[in-house]
Amino acid sequence: MVYDCAIVGSGPAGLEAALNLKIHNKNFIWLGSKNLSDKIRKAERISNYPGFTNISGAALIDAFQKQIEEMEIEVTEQMVNQIMPMGESYALMAGSEFYEAKTVILTTGVANKTALPGESEYLGKGVSYCATCDGGLYRGKTVGVVCNSKRFEHEVNFLAELADKVYLFKEYTEPAEVADNVEIVKAKATEVVGADKVEKVLCKDGSEFEVDGIFFLRDSIVLSNLLPNLEAEGGHIKVNRQMETNLKGVYAAGDCTGRPYQYTKAMGEGNVASHSVVEYLSELAKTQK
Amino acid sequence: MVYDCAIVGSGPAGLEAALNLKIHNKNFIWLGSKNLSDKIRKAERISNYPGFTNISGAALIDAFQKQIEEMEIEVTEQMVNQIMPMGESYALMAGSEFYEAKTVILTTGVANKTALPGESEYLGKGVSYCATCDGGLYRGKTVGVVCNSKRFEHEVNFLAELADKVYLFKEYTEPAEVADNVEIVKAKATEVVGADKVEKVLCKDGSEFEVDGIFFLRDSIVLSNLLPNLEAEGGHIKVNRQMETNLKGVYAAGDCTGRPYQYTKAMGEGNVASHSVVEYLSELAKTQK
Repeated sequence: MVYDCAIVGSGPAGLEAALNLKIHNKNFIWLGSKNLSDKIRKAERISNYPGFTNISGAALIDAFQKQIEEMEIEVTEQMVNQIMPMGESYALMAGSEFYEAKTVILTTGVANKTALPGESEYLGKGVSYCATCDGGLYRGKTVGVVCNSKRFEHEVNFLAELADKVYLFKEYTEPAEVADNVEIVKAKATEVVGADKVEKVLCKDGSEFEVDGIFFLRDSIVLSNLLPNLEAEGGHIKVNRQMETNLKGVYAAGDCTGRPYQYTKAMGEGNVASHSVVEYLSELAKTQK
Repeated sequence: MVYDCAIVGSGPAGLEAALNLKIHNKNFIWLGSKNLSDKIRKAERISNYPGFTNISGAALIDAFQKQIEEMEIEVTEQMVNQIMPMGESYALMAGSEFYEAKTVILTTGVANKTALPGESEYLGKGVSYCATCDGGLYRGKTVGVVCNSKRFEHEVNFLAELADKVYLFKEYTEPAEVADNVEIVKAKATEVVGADKVEKVLCKDGSEFEVDGIFFLRDSIVLSNLLPNLEAEGGHIKVNRQMETNLKGVYAAGDCTGRPYQYTKAMGEGNVASHSVVEYLSELAKTQK
């Protein structure tokens, strides 16, 4: 099935885009987290959200979740690893799943991650963003995992079932619950080095770890590796007032397009992006007649 | 007193700007209607407002009003008629009041009004937007009033106290409650004509009315007459992604900047505009040290 639209990300920008596409009866898939936004949930108090005086982030997220349930909108719990242009549509790789959509709305949040030196260079040559997809390549071998959220820990354990040895470069504070063959590394991974393929992970404290492959499991995406040729500006996705990116059929909204990092700004952009999608789909339908 | 900012308009864009400036401890004046937005209040059902499932416009406005009360934010019930640049600040004329502000955020709603032929030409030569300011010029004379909202009817009656005769070109549906010397005209006023000054109002049905002056009391503003040299594009105020207009210190947000005409889009833009104001004020403070 080719969806009319794939929304990537489940923060306020993605939410407003989803509400809008639902109203417009579009056939869309919304890829993100069923928690919507951990960042909002953790907010103690939100003072500039029209309609709710000094609401807690948790209460706001509860309201959002109630709303999407009532409107029968589903979040598909998936992290999109890569998007590829396919002529008139886009292919989205998310874990071992594959989705196809005529349009894409990127609402991936603050792009606070830049790739480590070597990360982009060795992508597909030992560097991977998806344990499910590429774990099988490392049966009986040694892999590193740079992981910044407890919610990806099951993927670490999945890798531990396949690999002989896993180095977990743990960038989250919660205690780890991992298999015996997972060694937790406290040093910060700073570089990926190798020859034809990945050979070592270098750390800030000077330590080195020999690996056959390295997985990056992060809750934010390195934009430059997500979608080839997507134009960025100052670390953000470049958009115009219609939320169009430089790629036909690809829109962006929310923190990923730049400051201010604010819920209403994100929602407003999600609204505009989804209206642009509706308009684009209607033009597309005319040309395909 | 020179305000840090004047927000013109009390729809969702103005509301979000006001919430934000309050949080940032700015000294601002918010000029609009204490009803906030009659357009929202009349909305039967709003389906894409994150946090409220299928809320009625009235309930949403009630929530907004409760919020500004709790946050001790005041709407000053005023319709801004004209804005004049004064070097480092702007002067806002609203009825017989005058305000001065370092920055202006225009949130004037859909600019669905274009001036009638002759309206801009005779501005100040018989055409006025303000009964309180200019009513005194027409003692014992005959004036026309083009009025599209019942809420300006008290100004019609104020003019009737001064003028000998008032022709009310009534563009609203509610029954009029006006003084005896007000003649209600059902024909649509389409042109203002005269020589050195206004002499006649011409109507669509061919009828003509001799007048000494003509007042336009509308709930939307003819942009081109509001602020000299403000750049427009396709009937909307031209802005960039930071909500800057072509005039230094003047920002715009909401329906007045273009489609989609949506609450979240307006709020998002109000948020961005107010952040731009905060940044501009901080730069201004540096240069004035």
